[in-house]
Amino acid sequence: MEFASDNIVGAHESVLAAIAEANSGTQSSYGYDAWTKHAEAALSALFEREVSAFLVLTGTAANALALSSICPAYGTVLCHAEAHINTDECGAPELFSGGARLTGLWAAQGKLTAQLIARSLDGLTRGEHESRPSALSITQATELGTVYSAAEVSDFGRLCKERRLKLHMDGSRFANAVSALGCSPAELTWKAGVDVLTFGATKNGALALEAVIFFNPVLAQDFRYRRKRGGQLLSKGRFLGAQMLAYLKDGLWLRNAAHANEMARSLAAELSQVESIRLPLPTQANGVFAIMPRALHEAMLDNGAHYYEWPGKGPGTDEVKEGECFARFVTSFKTSSQDIGALGTLACQLIEKGRSRRGAPSNRT
Amino acid sequence: MEFASDNIVGAHESVLAAIAEANSGTQSSYGYDAWTKHAEAALSALFEREVSAFLVLTGTAANALALSSICPAYGTVLCHAEAHINTDECGAPELFSGGARLTGLWAAQGKLTAQLIARSLDGLTRGEHESRPSALSITQATELGTVYSAAEVSDFGRLCKERRLKLHMDGSRFANAVSALGCSPAELTWKAGVDVLTFGATKNGALALEAVIFFNPVLAQDFRYRRKRGGQLLSKGRFLGAQMLAYLKDGLWLRNAAHANEMARSLAAELSQVESIRLPLPTQANGVFAIMPRALHEAMLDNGAHYYEWPGKGPGTDEVKEGECFARFVTSFKTSSQDIGALGTLACQLIEKGRSRRGAPSNRT
Amino acid sequence: MEFASDNIVGAHESVLAAIAEANSGTQSSYGYDAWTKHAEAALSALFEREVSAFLVLTGTAANALALSSICPAYGTVLCHAEAHINTDECGAPELFSGGARLTGLWAAQGKLTAQLIARSLDGLTRGEHESRPSALSITQATELGTVYSAAEVSDFGRLCKERRLKLHMDGSRFANAVSALGCSPAELTWKAGVDVLTFGATKNGALALEAVIFFNPVLAQDFRYRRKRGGQLLSKGRFLGAQMLAYLKDGLWLRNAAHANEMARSLAAELSQVESIRLPLPTQANGVFAIMPRALHEAMLDNGAHYYEWPGKGPGTDEVKEGECFARFVTSFKTSSQDIGALGTLACQLIEKGRSRRGAPSNRT
Amino acid sequence: MEFASDNIVGAHESVLAAIAEANSGTQSSYGYDAWTKHAEAALSALFEREVSAFLVLTGTAANALALSSICPAYGTVLCHAEAHINTDECGAPELFSGGARLTGLWAAQGKLTAQLIARSLDGLTRGEHESRPSALSITQATELGTVYSAAEVSDFGRLCKERRLKLHMDGSRFANAVSALGCSPAELTWKAGVDVLTFGATKNGALALEAVIFFNPVLAQDFRYRRKRGGQLLSKGRFLGAQMLAYLKDGLWLRNAAHANEMARSLAAELSQVESIRLPLPTQANGVFAIMPRALHEAMLDNGAHYYEWPGKGPGTDEVKEGECFARFVTSFKTSSQDIGALGTLACQLIEKGRSRRGAPSNRT
Repeated sequence: MEFASDNIVGAHESVLAAIAEANSGTQSSYGYDAWTKHAEAALSALFEREVSAFLVLTGTAANALALSSICPAYGTVLCHAEAHINTDECGAPELFSGGARLTGLWAAQGKLTAQLIARSLDGLTRGEHESRPSALSITQATELGTVYSAAEVSDFGRLCKERRLKLHMDGSRFANAVSALGCSPAELTWKAGVDVLTFGATKNGALALEAVIFFNPVLAQDFRYRRKRGGQLLSKGRFLGAQMLAYLKDGLWLRNAAHANEMARSLAAELSQVESIRLPLPTQANGVFAIMPRALHEAMLDNGAHYYEWPGKGPGTDEVKEGECFARFVTSFKTSSQDIGALGTLACQLIEKGRSRRGAPSNRT
Repeated sequence: MEFASDNIVGAHESVLAAIAEANSGTQSSYGYDAWTKHAEAALSALFEREVSAFLVLTGTAANALALSSICPAYGTVLCHAEAHINTDECGAPELFSGGARLTGLWAAQGKLTAQLIARSLDGLTRGEHESRPSALSITQATELGTVYSAAEVSDFGRLCKERRLKLHMDGSRFANAVSALGCSPAELTWKAGVDVLTFGATKNGALALEAVIFFNPVLAQDFRYRRKRGGQLLSKGRFLGAQMLAYLKDGLWLRNAAHANEMARSLAAELSQVESIRLPLPTQANGVFAIMPRALHEAMLDNGAHYYEWPGKGPGTDEVKEGECFARFVTSFKTSSQDIGALGTLACQLIEKGRSRRGAPSNRT
Repeated sequence: MEFASDNIVGAHESVLAAIAEANSGTQSSYGYDAWTKHAEAALSALFEREVSAFLVLTGTAANALALSSICPAYGTVLCHAEAHINTDECGAPELFSGGARLTGLWAAQGKLTAQLIARSLDGLTRGEHESRPSALSITQATELGTVYSAAEVSDFGRLCKERRLKLHMDGSRFANAVSALGCSPAELTWKAGVDVLTFGATKNGALALEAVIFFNPVLAQDFRYRRKRGGQLLSKGRFLGAQMLAYLKDGLWLRNAAHANEMARSLAAELSQVESIRLPLPTQANGVFAIMPRALHEAMLDNGAHYYEWPGKGPGTDEVKEGECFARFVTSFKTSSQDIGALGTLACQLIEKGRSRRGAPSNRT
Repeated sequence: MEFASDNIVGAHESVLAAIAEANSGTQSSYGYDAWTKHAEAALSALFEREVSAFLVLTGTAANALALSSICPAYGTVLCHAEAHINTDECGAPELFSGGARLTGLWAAQGKLTAQLIARSLDGLTRGEHESRPSALSITQATELGTVYSAAEVSDFGRLCKERRLKLHMDGSRFANAVSALGCSPAELTWKAGVDVLTFGATKNGALALEAVIFFNPVLAQDFRYRRKRGGQLLSKGRFLGAQMLAYLKDGLWLRNAAHANEMARSLAAELSQVESIRLPLPTQANGVFAIMPRALHEAMLDNGAHYYEWPGKGPGTDEVKEGECFARFVTSFKTSSQDIGALGTLACQLIEKGRSRRGAPSNRT
């Protein structure tokens, strides 16, 4: 019953096979190898236009490097208060940008709105006493398992253009969003005004691979310096190229995401039938969020269920009351139906047990 | 005839096998997996004491993160002018340290001496107008293919203690140095006063793996924050642990290095017999440096030999004259005797050809 | 009617006289002059113990440099959401610290509580995925014109010791707080657990002068490097020393603050008598905060009153309703009773005028 | 006999008078006051075109902020090895730029040449493995008391345009250079291709004042954010504006510099007549450099002469031999002929004394 994250599983077999295949012979190092060149071309094909794609090793680095290229050190990046860049990257955006700030804004369901951003910008009226608003970062799929429609992304794109901000998309789970929405990668990104995308692969089948993808070549101009300086230029670059090729080949990335999403829907269905568990958020990608009694939560963990209590403020659509907990379950390309069934069964058993214990005649006097 | 670098080859088969083996099942992410724990223990065993070891993905990041933990932002790290950190990392040490400076000092054979460092420190007399000298970084094996003996490292260790500097060793080719010197890893590091070591694996058989190893636990205290913030905490950390275990298992790391070193000696022997090529430096690790006529150099490149002209100042023991070039040849754990023979033969043929061309009666009048 | 800030007035005459006096002759530069030495000694006397005092030129630099010496680049400084460091310094703390983060917590009346800090720290449970909590910064007097009692500061001091945080006090208006509380500078700082104080002088009579004062000499050890590197080491340092000596001489600093505080109390009394103006906060230092109808506010500005609408969330003790504005009035050592009387009179006249206009028979049908 | 630096004297009386004059009344803070506006206009007039001028407090900050706006964090600034930014600012350029590097190149007489810069750029061939060359910084007058002619500056300007570098001039002693060359400020800067100038005033009569002057408004666009974030936006900005107005009024800045230069020529004449002192550099601005016997040097210091041994490599035109020292004497707007005469007399006396001591019959046996 493993739902702690989508990074607790290994890599997809095809990715490992590609690594093994790429291993033989000599290749130019530092990304000038044949595998990387093919991967870069494959990404352009995927996005239906010439893109400037840079392969890197971790999602935190990908996000931080992407932001550093669109926000000056004296600027600020607007984002959701619970965005990964704001809560889980230990200040990497600040490091790579030379000290830019993040302005975290809270909104229900993990989803910012263009109106909220506009209002926030309107409130910044004191010129150089505040960091200059320079970029907006949205997460697709969001940290709360929801997705932005192409129209919603376009709203951000328009606003950013008007206000002269750059638009970043943290696509650590981009595949899950694309699969969920049935849009093309192009429609969800550059056609909607995204300037730079963190295209995640590690969570969805790769070993250690993310791509920073610029749709605006001017922004990408010096990015190779940033990547090297950031310690993200792998000497044996062939292994990144090979992973990406396998990840994209025959739509593996979308198949993996579709499976994870399906498992999430199935898990949501399972949990929604459990008495005393509420699902306050739509299950749109591969995360399922549940409000449950803390006693049940603790019993679940004690009985081998692995998942986390979400440290954030809550869904914004339903209140997490005293004695309750707000939990996140994540599915991956390797999640099995059995695991989901087992979780549901466990929850029901624990509730039954709890009820019989409370309901049983007590000896105490 | 591939001698451009030791990173143009793939990973060792055992490393790939370990990655495949580690792939199954779920594991805690972010370095809390079983493979990483074993790897950390294996490094302590290797160094014959408890060490604080942190696995990361690239050598540039390993060096820069290590330096950031021993040099404050207002400090300076003394190093050889041609140290990799000073010439090939695009300012990564500056990034990760928050702007510390590198003070590059030139010395013959790529080797600093304790006397030179002492003299340089003595010349820093203007207090806060200059960056505070805070650390010394030495490369083992050096960028010019030479090695520091344990006694030489101890000289640095003593000096650093006296002058209150921390001592970093860039061990990107540490295995080659250990193999060459026949010392134990402990003797070359903490027993000689090294505070933190970049323990390289990528060049010598891994896919993407370096370790930052602290011998002083106080310095390591917050390093996990630095690693995460630096984008070097791999989510599927098992794959770093597995690489390291395979790399160390049954002395693979030393066997790989011994092979590379032997190939370098063999290449040096081959080149030393070529007329008009001089070898100005001892071949102590896996780099061979040669002074050769530029015409020969260009002909070699044209005929399929791959290696680089060294951009630095020269060996310091023999002058590179007008019309000559100073070239670096690097061997690896995969270098073959055939390649070496082919290079030697090519050089001789080209010289012969050049001579006959010059010697032939000319039609021009 | 000038209440926009305490920095819209010039310097005190005694300060200017001291500058003129210090002008003659040659003096060692960069803070090694006699005036600076005496000023440093005077600060130790003022705080009743040896302190490490560093004179700098601006408050933003003083705060940012102070924080950089107690919070590592991978750390975070807890502070009030509306603290000057968080809202008005354009990321200077991030710059000088190499990218540390500020964690802004909101609390009523501009005043943090030790309980709030403790709860926030308890919520940081994810290790290196979050910036390491390293310091707490409190403002004395606060941005909302309130002050922390010595007991409240001691609560922070105790908490910081327990949780291994350093405690910074932004004393941009320290004089106003000392004057208001009737405590000694020592009681409000090191005796209560403050590690480093930004001792403001510019707002209260100096031309351009702040001091960073360390009560813990270990923290101050390398601060001279930080000051120089931060561009805050004035070559003609005598002029900072002279300002500080004049500022402290015969208690000028406290007399200036007492005057400003008295003017604030007088202004509060004046405004509290104006119908339709509410004062939601105690007037403890030299800031007066008022909730007033927006129409009145705009009329006041139109009629020559200078003060600002406070951009923050509100007092936390009284709601700012639709159609109202939350305004800040600041008094200084030069504020006159006439100006206060004029402001009160203006407000009353405008209200009267508004009433008669609304009350007058209307021609409209 | 005070020749240690041009910052050991106070401010010019006119500057102090202007400060006193600006003291009365209220003024908008943070540079929006009338004095600052006039000063900015005066600088445009001085340079015969619209400039974007920003007043700041120290030369180190002015240089570092200027460089941060023309060199990205992953870039490098080429400069003379003995440039103030490279040797005397404790890493301020690295701090303010977010970690950019300085590439120090040595050349005789403290003067770079366009050829040297071109050659250095040609040697940077390894792309992102090295920091990207982004700017050139020249010092006018140089650290060795020499000046660049307008034609020489134009050579740099042309080269920078060709190679897409920005050109910075550290004009800490710009006045001395303008006075020496008899050119207009415009001819020495934007007409010759300078993008941004640090226009120094502190050394030449101000109390604490430098200006960062952009000739390219695009580069200046966000500079107000940099200035604030760098802790260089003075709240009582009127005092910077007033200093600048006084400094420029009726050519005070040029008269002061002319005096200092004249004193330097006079000192050079004086020293050149002293037996055993050699002047290896032309005296073009307000610095005089002398090679003298170390024994004489020490005797001079012992007898009340104040000046420094230059820590750099030497003039490049005459060798500093064993037993000799290379000393720098600096004159200022307050230097008197008497002081110069006294120094010359002292030197002669000491030589005489030394000679008689050595020449006298010795009692020792």
